[in-house]
Amino acid sequence: MVEFALRETVIRSASKEVVISHERPFCIIGERINPTGRKVFQEALRNGDLSLVEKDVAAQVAGGADVLDVNMGVPLTDEAELLDKAIRLIQSLTDLPVCIDSSVVEALEAGLAAYEGRALVNSVTAEDDRLAAILPLVKKYDAAVIALPNDHDEIPMEAGKRIELVDKTVRVATQEYGIAIDDIVIDPLAMPIGADGSVGQTALETIREVKARWGLNLTCGASNVSFGMPSRHAINATWLPMAMTAGMTSAIMDARTPQVVEAVRAADLLLGHDEWGGTWIRMHRAKQAAEAAATGA
Amino acid sequence: MVEFALRETVIRSASKEVVISHERPFCIIGERINPTGRKVFQEALRNGDLSLVEKDVAAQVAGGADVLDVNMGVPLTDEAELLDKAIRLIQSLTDLPVCIDSSVVEALEAGLAAYEGRALVNSVTAEDDRLAAILPLVKKYDAAVIALPNDHDEIPMEAGKRIELVDKTVRVATQEYGIAIDDIVIDPLAMPIGADGSVGQTALETIREVKARWGLNLTCGASNVSFGMPSRHAINATWLPMAMTAGMTSAIMDARTPQVVEAVRAADLLLGHDEWGGTWIRMHRAKQAAEAAATGA
Repeated sequence: MVEFALRETVIRSASKEVVISHERPFCIIGERINPTGRKVFQEALRNGDLSLVEKDVAAQVAGGADVLDVNMGVPLTDEAELLDKAIRLIQSLTDLPVCIDSSVVEALEAGLAAYEGRALVNSVTAEDDRLAAILPLVKKYDAAVIALPNDHDEIPMEAGKRIELVDKTVRVATQEYGIAIDDIVIDPLAMPIGADGSVGQTALETIREVKARWGLNLTCGASNVSFGMPSRHAINATWLPMAMTAGMTSAIMDARTPQVVEAVRAADLLLGHDEWGGTWIRMHRAKQAAEAAATGA
Repeated sequence: MVEFALRETVIRSASKEVVISHERPFCIIGERINPTGRKVFQEALRNGDLSLVEKDVAAQVAGGADVLDVNMGVPLTDEAELLDKAIRLIQSLTDLPVCIDSSVVEALEAGLAAYEGRALVNSVTAEDDRLAAILPLVKKYDAAVIALPNDHDEIPMEAGKRIELVDKTVRVATQEYGIAIDDIVIDPLAMPIGADGSVGQTALETIREVKARWGLNLTCGASNVSFGMPSRHAINATWLPMAMTAGMTSAIMDARTPQVVEAVRAADLLLGHDEWGGTWIRMHRAKQAAEAAATGA
């Protein structure tokens, strides 16, 4: 076994700090501030109307998000301009730190320039041109970055190959761009289980190895694994505690789904990251109070 | 890393075989056929009325149990006689194999003598006198056995000490009593998380080590971890997938709790033990059909 330290990834807004860590409660990155697949939202954004962003921010905050993922990818718009506007708006609405989510380099830069704090950048692949385009921005704006272990549009189906790509990214980011190793968060690539029954084990193996070799933090899109299957919330609510047992420390997920948030908090409790069950008991009481209010009691 | 094979524990009734294995779906041992804490059930059993056993068997079978745990511990009764009767009755009601659950050696023997098949014995501790009393019965009746790594009424709070006791039990059972190593199933001792936040990690560490060193099957009482906490089903439904990720292969649990059964089946799917999601999709359809029937559609 290689010696390693468990890493801490610190991100912050102008007034609030969030630490992603193997020894703290799981970090919920609220994912809904994203127009992908939402026609009404897309149309509003095209017309410069960001009122749905306000609604989505409020819902993610209410659901218990620790960080907000912000994506403004609308076809046929200036994504950089939209992301700049959205980031400014979100900072006026909440003190939660943000995760700036775009595949367009100019949009990432606009978002980072507009942000007052330490953002998480979502994401960079292990392709040379992407590393060369995105890592200088991460360094320039003192951000942290989510790294995906895939190369040239190919997603390796073996954990060993993914680990090689993580190794490459860690080497390039730290040695060539001077990024601190704590600021690299790995997405182990959890693929849809309905297409191939081995993808869960491959992701778990990747998570374990990333934790064991580098002590890095890990994140994933919580709902990818259940794509195409019925009862998706139940699958996602089972997947995250399994991934957390292997070493996952955060996820990009919809904080409006109580079943999945509850599973994450139960896993925190069972991993010893919720002292005396304080958070668990508080959640239970809030749920009881909400139920009582709903029945008019 | 020590070389090891993954073990298979075969149990059977007169007509049905169940294999507990690291490479098959999780084995649900239905736990409700047990009068502990149930006054009406105890009173009925004292009067020789076993009709509640019939009801409990039917409910566990309907919930998806693979094996039935049978406990007839009623104060001030002849437990051996009751267990003999219950085992005979259950064999007439279902073809599921049984797990014979008693701390009374004479009752275990009566149950084993009445059983036509290969039972699982619940349980033996690592104490010398218990090993000497119970292992000869396991061998004589060609059963499998659940072994607990505790000694002299002390439950070790460190995984390392539990592993020493597993090592002792494996050595004694195989070398002194000629029991096949595949027939030893380890309970890693999952204690209530509300009393001590470290017990989940200790159990997970014990599970990983038992799998890595011996490839043995593992089981636990699914609801122990949540004792004393609110929202127990949600904690149990999170705990089992976490334990399965570490190597747990069965649990003694109430098959009437859909939330927990669903979590186990989702974990099977995610671990690649439910090819093409066949079981998962069947469960979903049955649930939809039941909901449609309930709303009179």
